[in-house]
Amino acid sequence: MKLIRFGKVGEEKPGILDDNGKRKDLSSDFEDWNHSFFQNEGLDKLRQLDFSQFPEVDANERLGSCVPRPGKVICIGLNYSDHAAESGMAIPEEPIIFQKGANTVVGPNDHILIPRNSEKTDWEVELGIVIGKDARYLNSTEEAKDYIAGYCISHDVSERAFQLEKGGQWTKGKSCDNFNPLGPFLATSDEIRNIHNLKMKLWVNGVEVQNGNTNTMIFDCYFVVHYLSQFMTLEAGDVISTGTPPGVGLGMKPPQYLKSGDHVVLEIEQLGRQEQICVNA
Amino acid sequence: MKLIRFGKVGEEKPGILDDNGKRKDLSSDFEDWNHSFFQNEGLDKLRQLDFSQFPEVDANERLGSCVPRPGKVICIGLNYSDHAAESGMAIPEEPIIFQKGANTVVGPNDHILIPRNSEKTDWEVELGIVIGKDARYLNSTEEAKDYIAGYCISHDVSERAFQLEKGGQWTKGKSCDNFNPLGPFLATSDEIRNIHNLKMKLWVNGVEVQNGNTNTMIFDCYFVVHYLSQFMTLEAGDVISTGTPPGVGLGMKPPQYLKSGDHVVLEIEQLGRQEQICVNA
Repeated sequence: MKLIRFGKVGEEKPGILDDNGKRKDLSSDFEDWNHSFFQNEGLDKLRQLDFSQFPEVDANERLGSCVPRPGKVICIGLNYSDHAAESGMAIPEEPIIFQKGANTVVGPNDHILIPRNSEKTDWEVELGIVIGKDARYLNSTEEAKDYIAGYCISHDVSERAFQLEKGGQWTKGKSCDNFNPLGPFLATSDEIRNIHNLKMKLWVNGVEVQNGNTNTMIFDCYFVVHYLSQFMTLEAGDVISTGTPPGVGLGMKPPQYLKSGDHVVLEIEQLGRQEQICVNA
Repeated sequence: MKLIRFGKVGEEKPGILDDNGKRKDLSSDFEDWNHSFFQNEGLDKLRQLDFSQFPEVDANERLGSCVPRPGKVICIGLNYSDHAAESGMAIPEEPIIFQKGANTVVGPNDHILIPRNSEKTDWEVELGIVIGKDARYLNSTEEAKDYIAGYCISHDVSERAFQLEKGGQWTKGKSCDNFNPLGPFLATSDEIRNIHNLKMKLWVNGVEVQNGNTNTMIFDCYFVVHYLSQFMTLEAGDVISTGTPPGVGLGMKPPQYLKSGDHVVLEIEQLGRQEQICVNA
């Protein structure tokens, strides 16, 4: 299944994208795709429904993030070997973890806001994991599979000067407003043939800058969920952004960054497409 | 005013501590001390009430965190010069920022959970700031004062091996379950004569280990709120832990860490006292 949220900012309703690509409004039966929904086996209830019974949503309606504001947004740093190399950093021996403010999560096609005093706003196409059930001290990577609701595109927008030139710790360059477009849809795990073999691309103003594949991840999705659960409780609805492949602006010679008016497109195979315009905050 | 929350885990109700130190139940008039309360000038409404009209709460009731789960918990690292020295780290030129998972917030006297496989669980008494109004690109440190609802004790429990020995970024050692006891009460800003001159202490099994004063902060509360607002939107109800003074276990020779059965007490002048027992997760 493909879960969406649609409507004005702050008033999003839950829906699904049916097999014909039509948007259906499920707000009559569900409050939202939130912690309570996932934790109480909402996906199983959803699977039993005949979506043809539900009203269609206008194709022009804005899409919100595919899940509402998560309890946590955890990011894995330098999780593609080529990206670590282009950033001039060593390949990590254990996953590098940092957090983005969960209030950065916005719709897949909402504007990217270039922060005030920013000169180094950068892009990062990433595979996002959405947690399906509270997870704490999982026993194995195999068990981790049962705790994943599904996957989506997560744009981990980053300000490199804030992240790297202002004294330790990355969160400062990761938590600006609108820095995490999420969606267009959450594909449940059973929708994806092989999560570790998906092409991922990102274009700026029509020029392809990122072109990678989830098959070059250093720590795969199941490893990451199991690993994180040893250090914190992952809650249903939490989002994990699993790192970006090569091709970010920081790695270009000379580096290239986003400015007002730029047009950014992201795609991950089987997970759809995001499209954003940059505007000044 | 001194705001409290009381009741079982997950069922906390809002209350206040009156001038006689009695706990009063305000759940008839308020849902919770949450984002909506602060953002919609709930503190002004609260000020107009005669608390003697409200029912008293049993003094044996558990206290919850003084505010419900925040949208974000931001921490300032190495913000006391002596603590930076004892950690063997340079005094930062700009505030070091990291995030704790907001699901770590618990009541002031709840157990500290020693994480599985932890050998280096450490203590940190900190002054917590609670944001009173959404803050974005504030113009000055002076303006920042208007965006602070008040202050509380925030225990920034930390696992040093997870934080420092497992590959970059600190959040891994900061987000374990129950790692942020908060309270016992939120003192509104007007309650505190001088926030930058408060004694703060922490005892382990009756032995005083931390003894500091907020007057040795490197970046003061107003600076921190103004600074953070340049990088992210601070939302009403968000919590900022402003760093710890000297005396953490990591800095002892040899280092000393918490184990099951240990008894921890924290005090900050005018902000009350926390008391925790350590148990294995």
